[in-house]
This record gives sequence, structure tokens and C-alpha cells, in this order.
Amino acid sequence: MSEDEILQDLFTRMVGDVRDVIVGPGDDCAGIDIGNGRCLLIAVDHVVGERHYTGSGRDAVPPEAVGRKLLARNLSDIAAMGGRPTCCLVASATCPRRDEQWLQRFFDGILGLAAEWNVAMIGGDLARTPNDDVASLTILGEVPSDRVCRRSGARPGDVLLATGTFGASLPSGHHLSFTPRCREGAWLAQQDGTHAMIDVSDGLALDLVRLCRASEVSGCLDVDAVPRRLPGLSVDEVLSAGEDYELLVAVAREAGEQIRARWPFADVPLTRIGELCVPGGHRLVNARGQPLDAVLGFDHFTDTERP
Amino acid sequence: MSEDEILQDLFTRMVGDVRDVIVGPGDDCAGIDIGNGRCLLIAVDHVVGERHYTGSGRDAVPPEAVGRKLLARNLSDIAAMGGRPTCCLVASATCPRRDEQWLQRFFDGILGLAAEWNVAMIGGDLARTPNDDVASLTILGEVPSDRVCRRSGARPGDVLLATGTFGASLPSGHHLSFTPRCREGAWLAQQDGTHAMIDVSDGLALDLVRLCRASEVSGCLDVDAVPRRLPGLSVDEVLSAGEDYELLVAVAREAGEQIRARWPFADVPLTRIGELCVPGGHRLVNARGQPLDAVLGFDHFTDTERP
Repeated sequence: MSEDEILQDLFTRMVGDVRDVIVGPGDDCAGIDIGNGRCLLIAVDHVVGERHYTGSGRDAVPPEAVGRKLLARNLSDIAAMGGRPTCCLVASATCPRRDEQWLQRFFDGILGLAAEWNVAMIGGDLARTPNDDVASLTILGEVPSDRVCRRSGARPGDVLLATGTFGASLPSGHHLSFTPRCREGAWLAQQDGTHAMIDVSDGLALDLVRLCRASEVSGCLDVDAVPRRLPGLSVDEVLSAGEDYELLVAVAREAGEQIRARWPFADVPLTRIGELCVPGGHRLVNARGQPLDAVLGFDHFTDTERP
Repeated sequence: MSEDEILQDLFTRMVGDVRDVIVGPGDDCAGIDIGNGRCLLIAVDHVVGERHYTGSGRDAVPPEAVGRKLLARNLSDIAAMGGRPTCCLVASATCPRRDEQWLQRFFDGILGLAAEWNVAMIGGDLARTPNDDVASLTILGEVPSDRVCRRSGARPGDVLLATGTFGASLPSGHHLSFTPRCREGAWLAQQDGTHAMIDVSDGLALDLVRLCRASEVSGCLDVDAVPRRLPGLSVDEVLSAGEDYELLVAVAREAGEQIRARWPFADVPLTRIGELCVPGGHRLVNARGQPLDAVLGFDHFTDTERP
């Protein structure tokens, strides 16, 4: 089973009082109604040494960059719900090789980015492991309850817009230095006609399929329209390498051009890259509508490509 | 530096908008004012294989018990604030030895205890590690804002009460099977005269010192009065072995006997074990007031005893 399937199975067995849970498991964040039209957003994400970053040797990522990446990944989840990040908690478990200085530098990376986004670190736990470095961060945020962007709101006929560029995240260093799209996500959530949004972290193709599944629609992706992070990338690299941390958004067809025209972030492209239709199979096409084959993403839990 | 000192140092560098943070870092939970007299509680805690449980070999702890312990530790943090647990998120990072069945059984343990406490699992993340098993759980809870129990509210003259019994948590299996004191914590928080509360997880002596430091008082612990989990335990075992997951509460002297008299939980002792006085050095005494030497606890981050 993939991570998605295991979590899905677990969450069907979910118990407890969910009266106030307005976005349940399976989206970028959970959402809890806290009254007065406010929705509390909450999510958790990991970084693991030798998995999400190189922890040792000549290519070892500086601990500041590890901490920064951990928070940035979580901010991207808040962005995808249209939210404003507010607080975080950090659980860090480090191996005996990591001294106090490493840990201080790791937290410097978190606190530096937290200051940029006005995010307060309100709690944490430090533990030791025998061998590995594992850290998780819980992010809290807030969004008006009537502006929460789920994965599941897309409709047949919607157009697909994407922020930024795709591919080559690891070789370009983007996965360590990216700016989470919180500004853009909050703006998009405020626009009439915005139906659904997702954070593209596991490859554009796989995260498109996730949005489609949640919304019970099919996707048609115009591969040639997807902006490349670097020239000369293959289709697979652009669609499947992952760690883009951009936003994929489904908007009503009639709103699409208006949203693009009013887009206030000159430094970040917002590109139309496809459309959604009634269920019946996802398609990858080029600009002439010809179908393309491509791997649809990477499952970071099972280490397998997802067809 | 100990875990306490490292976290304390980090939290002094805390940034962000803390207007709504009514309990900041350093307590059992953080507390956020969500309006209408409600305080959202949030905390995160770990379990690490070969640290908090034996992960392999003949003594391997069943994965259900690992999951149960992870949630129970966090419930104990909610209990210490007087709160009612509501939701959780789980971040699990497992090594290649752990198959899907292990993971399912680990989550069975979480979900089983979650059902008992009406706690909804609303999110999570699964990752893989090279070698170790690390899981963290973020717990959410709620408490009326005017009934939040901090560590810092104790006053000179207060008496110290403790739930349950102490010592021998590991050999007795208590650390895997304990019932978190959420009922008791919520009841205690409702009593007039309750000033401060802490979850005893790192040894009664160390957690007493933490409560005293936060409240700027000194503690006088009547060692002979502390109920033993098993007969024949040494003072060090009772005060310092840790993993008791009981509550230590400071109440106004005049309220102490009334609270004990009205205590509604016949299956859990509530014992007077000491008192607090003006700052000037903690004391361990026996029933005749004679001073005792003892190790004051165990730092699970640095693996050192704390004098």
C-alpha cells in the first residue's frame, strides 16, 4: 500500500468527536471550526536525514537549511488551504553525532523562517535516537471558514492554474530555498471562482491526480504549458520529480482569465496548465491535444513510482 | 545543556504573533485563546525505539503497546492542564524492518486508546528512516480559559497532592498500560484552591523542581508519604525513575483537606506528599522532617541524572 492508501485506511477507522472538524484527514491540513467564522488549520510533516536531505559526508546539508526546509514544507500546507500560518511545535529526534551546536543551528533555520512569516514556536520535544535524525513540525494556521480551500471542491469544466515553475527541485537547490506560497494561497482563496487547491510536493502529476480523486473529476494536463524551472528538463522530470512546493488550483472557467489578470504577484508566474472534466480517466496532453505517457509521481513512503 | 535548558534558550528567541498565546512554551501544553472563554491546548511528544521502548529481540514491545504509549503520554500532558483531549495528529517514521502489518498494529494501539477518550485522529504523515523508529504525536485539547492549570501558579504555603503511586514504572509495565489522568486533571482544575499542576513523567523529584522553578517557590517533599507502586522500592526509585504519568498538584493549604475529602475517584489515591514554601532551596524530608539526599530526576535528552 502507498502512504495515501495506508492513511486513507486508517482514517476510515477514525473515532472521536468530529463535530467541529470541518476539514478531515486527507487534505493538506485538517480544519477545525473554532467559532466566529474562524477555521483553525493544522498539519504535521517530517524531514528525515538521508531521505529528505543528505545528513553526512561532503554533501551534508547545513542544519540551518534542514530546519528551514522543515518549516517551509509545513507552511506550504497552510498555503494550500488559503490560510495564514500562526504557530508551530517542533519534535526533534537526533542521533549521537549531532551535538548541541548542530541542534542550535537546526533551530536557527526554523526560527529564521518563522520570523519572516510571523510564526511563533510555542512548544516542542527533544529526543535522542540510536542512529537517525528525524524531525517533525506541527503547523497551526487560520482561515475564514467560508474561504477554506479543500482538494475536493473542483468541478468539471474548471481550469487548472499553477504558481511558479516545476522540475529539478533537488539539483537546483529549490527544495531547500523555496518560498512557501502563503501570500499567493491566501489571495487565491479570497477570489470568487476558486474551487480547490493543493500543494504540489510529490510531483505535479501525482498531486493533480489527488486533487482529481478528491473532487471526483478527471484532469487534462497540457504538459507543454507547464513552466519549467530549468531549460531542457524531460516531461518526467517536470511532472514527477516532486518537491516543487507550488500551488495547483482549480478555478471556474469563467473566472480563470480574470484571476490571472488580477494576479498581484509579479515575481511568481500563475499559469494555465490544463482543465478538469467529468470522471473517465486522467489525460496528459501536449499543446496539440495529443496524449503523452508519463510517470504520475513518486510515493515517498514506499519509494516507488506511481503509474 | 539539558533538554529543559535547550528548549528554554530556544523559546526565549521565540518570534511571531503571540497575542493569543495564553500559555507559552515550557508548560505541559501550550494554550491559545480561541475566544468565547475557550483555551485550545496543544502539545507534542515522542516515542523512540530502543529509547522509550524495546523495539526488537525477545523483549520487543508489541506495536499496539507502542502506539498506545505514544497517545497516553500526550493525554497525560492534556490532563496536567486540566483539559479535555479532542484530536490528534501522528507523524510516524519507521525503518525498513517495519512492514505494513507492524504499522497497522502501531496505529491500532493509538486508535484503541483514542476511542476510549473520544479523541479523533485528524491528520498524520508517514515517513521511512534508514534505521530507527521514531513517532511523534500532536495532541489537541480544550479547557475553559479561566481554569487552565499552569506549572507557574503555585504559592508558598500550598500543599502538594499527587495522584496514584510512584516508582517501578518500567519493571511493572505501568509505562505501557497506565491510564492517563484526564478525568482527575479536569476535576482538579475545577476546584477552587487548585493553583498549579504538572504531569510527573521524568521523576517526581525533577518534576517537582520544575513546578517550583516555574512558580518561584521551594518544595518540601515528605518522602515517606509518597505512595509506592510496589513494596520495597528505594527512595531513588520512587522519586527519580520516571514514567509515572501521575499528576502533581499544588493547592491552597486551606483547600487541601476539602479537595481530598471530595475526591470522587475511589480507584486512584490522592495523597498529600509535601508543601511549598518561599524560595530558598528544595528539601526532601522524611516523616520526621529529617533531610534526605536523593537524585532529583533523569534528563531523557542528555541521558544524565539531574542533581
